[in-house]
Amino acid sequence: MSGFPELITVNKALEKIKGSLNLSIEVEDVPLSECVGRVLAEDVISPIDVPPFDRSAVEGYAVLSSDTFSATPTNPIELTVIGKSEAGQEPSQIPQISSGTAVEIFTGAPIPQGADAVVMVEQTKRVGDKVLIYSPVAKWRNVSKQGEDFAKGKPLLLKGTRMKPWHIGALASANITKVKAYRKLRIGILSTGSELKELGEEVKLGEIVNSSKPMLTALIKERNCIPVDLGTVEDELNKILERLRLGLEICDIIVTTGGTSLGEKDLTPEAVQKLGSPGLIVHGVAMRPAKPTGAGVVNGKPIFILSGYPVAALVGFEVFVDEVINFIYGTKPEPKPKVRGRLTRKLATQVGYRCFVRARVTPSPSGYLIEPIKLTGSGLLSSMTKANAMIMVEENVEGFDEGDEVEAYLIQPIEAPL
Amino acid sequence: MSGFPELITVNKALEKIKGSLNLSIEVEDVPLSECVGRVLAEDVISPIDVPPFDRSAVEGYAVLSSDTFSATPTNPIELTVIGKSEAGQEPSQIPQISSGTAVEIFTGAPIPQGADAVVMVEQTKRVGDKVLIYSPVAKWRNVSKQGEDFAKGKPLLLKGTRMKPWHIGALASANITKVKAYRKLRIGILSTGSELKELGEEVKLGEIVNSSKPMLTALIKERNCIPVDLGTVEDELNKILERLRLGLEICDIIVTTGGTSLGEKDLTPEAVQKLGSPGLIVHGVAMRPAKPTGAGVVNGKPIFILSGYPVAALVGFEVFVDEVINFIYGTKPEPKPKVRGRLTRKLATQVGYRCFVRARVTPSPSGYLIEPIKLTGSGLLSSMTKANAMIMVEENVEGFDEGDEVEAYLIQPIEAPL
Repeated sequence: MSGFPELITVNKALEKIKGSLNLSIEVEDVPLSECVGRVLAEDVISPIDVPPFDRSAVEGYAVLSSDTFSATPTNPIELTVIGKSEAGQEPSQIPQISSGTAVEIFTGAPIPQGADAVVMVEQTKRVGDKVLIYSPVAKWRNVSKQGEDFAKGKPLLLKGTRMKPWHIGALASANITKVKAYRKLRIGILSTGSELKELGEEVKLGEIVNSSKPMLTALIKERNCIPVDLGTVEDELNKILERLRLGLEICDIIVTTGGTSLGEKDLTPEAVQKLGSPGLIVHGVAMRPAKPTGAGVVNGKPIFILSGYPVAALVGFEVFVDEVINFIYGTKPEPKPKVRGRLTRKLATQVGYRCFVRARVTPSPSGYLIEPIKLTGSGLLSSMTKANAMIMVEENVEGFDEGDEVEAYLIQPIEAPL
Repeated sequence: MSGFPELITVNKALEKIKGSLNLSIEVEDVPLSECVGRVLAEDVISPIDVPPFDRSAVEGYAVLSSDTFSATPTNPIELTVIGKSEAGQEPSQIPQISSGTAVEIFTGAPIPQGADAVVMVEQTKRVGDKVLIYSPVAKWRNVSKQGEDFAKGKPLLLKGTRMKPWHIGALASANITKVKAYRKLRIGILSTGSELKELGEEVKLGEIVNSSKPMLTALIKERNCIPVDLGTVEDELNKILERLRLGLEICDIIVTTGGTSLGEKDLTPEAVQKLGSPGLIVHGVAMRPAKPTGAGVVNGKPIFILSGYPVAALVGFEVFVDEVINFIYGTKPEPKPKVRGRLTRKLATQVGYRCFVRARVTPSPSGYLIEPIKLTGSGLLSSMTKANAMIMVEENVEGFDEGDEVEAYLIQPIEAPL
């Protein structure tokens, strides 16, 4: 029983972990309907021109632009309407334009051969089989040119893109039904602690429900990874070793909770050290909460030893596991929504520690007010459920005075019920 | 064929739509594993105290705090260790503390009867069955009091909370296995356009793939709602009417694409008007892109007539459908990540229109540079895939000059491959 021999900074810890990883994540075909949140493993080359033909961007009349150059509101020019071009029509069925003629055309319809512009309907007047044009139109005006969105043979999306709904739209527009993406990472969750009962089980006095597992499961799913339940084990070295070995076989990343401190019963760091090389490489991080976080690498796979305290586990997950997921995929973290505001009270943090302070942001006539909730209390999830923001205080900062302007990142809408 | 008679502002349009809605969304039991992103339909009252008993927040020795008041590093006080309290142990099995005694205790273990504080192990030295205490400890220091996280009978989470992973943790800590949440909204997607082919189908010259449907499907899923495919129909009034009637029966919200302009073939607004009262209430919005957006309400349910152009459909969805989903659930929009930076070129927008300009943000030594990509080109999804941000220009702004500082919201990490 003693304190941590030496604390490592968050950045140094991440550097050490990343430097020891050796994972290669297979690539798989993913249908478009499953692509949101997935990461492209290669550039996608457009197999066709999008749009696949010159088409009208508006409703009006397809014309030869040179016919319209003298048109004015008082001296319109007159063209003979020789047909119609409707969306979905085959271009060969549409009459060909020559000087003096026009084709009535709808949005999305093919541009007739010979035409090089579309006059918007608002600048025309139809009189029987004639149309009056009140304004000149420049060459290719109101025409979506073949391939102007995505050109055949050119990259449509780049490797490393984490796909959003509009990427799905872009792929669909080129009639691409599946893409090569990295498979979802499998993240094992191992809970340790003799006092833990599973959610829904009967809980005797002295026992508590394992709240970290459902929370971590939710966090992992939110990141488009697959949670793998490695079970809950008592504080026994051999049981922990056995589950970690299983986890190394079937998962890409392992996350454990509990057993991170340096007490008699905190066996997970010891287990990770025994599992293989390099073993335990981080134990104790200069951060608050989540100081007792540990991390190891075995067979090139990371094992994160998170606190048994749920808020510390959450912060440890967001600081370490998130970053390593992005590192493995080659992606960047999603941007966080931030606000600046004035502290409603002094916020004392310890120099040398990166601190994550739960906070409540409220609007005021003079800008946002930011009330720090708790620096300690990493066992209290109510400190999260009562917060709509977090303040991250860097290692070189000693804290802030009441009224100081600080930045906070929002974890909920500011107006969410708290 | 003519222009829109009168454009309505985004805010007025939303007001009109919301004012006509009459939807009541049923409440259902949702297991914790499915709760992320769901909205609580009632306050959740904690059925138990969390933690359920006084427990130690650290490893050390449970003591009577008054025994320690004179302890100093040079004059430690000595207590007799009469037992151990381990996590998971039943409190009745733990020896009772009286003056002069201490119990070795682990993190999370029950506080023995009689004890009112825990001395951290770092401030002690064990010598056989005695322990030396080098520092006084205040009453209840290092003790997590029963119910201090969530008290029995008190609200644990509030109605209207859109649940995040830590809410799941909080519910689990009180052994709550399911909650009452609003059921997921069913959002129908009806595509209109004779030129449209479904993703994966053979596409003849003159036809295009329906890219909006897969994109909208992804948007709807991202918002934790259920997409319902109402099919793709040609530009025929009766077919559109039939599908809208079906949609009103089986969906809460309908979204259509195509058929929003005022041409001969744009029949959806007419269909919505025919369906019932109040029918079409918005047609043409002072915004760019997505000016031809329409909206109606029939049987209290909203129908959004989005553009056939995918970027306009996307913007229309985010401006109108998102807002109405939040309105129905009583939730607030998730905060957007924003940055401020200087424009790399002039950005001309039209006064009176709310404009959504795709942009590319890049870091520079003097701060972020923001390059507007396109104001027009709402048919070009490449204007989205090449963007990492959007600039929203309010109606009363005439645009910005090169070098002006503007705010943009990020739709991707700044460093994402574009």
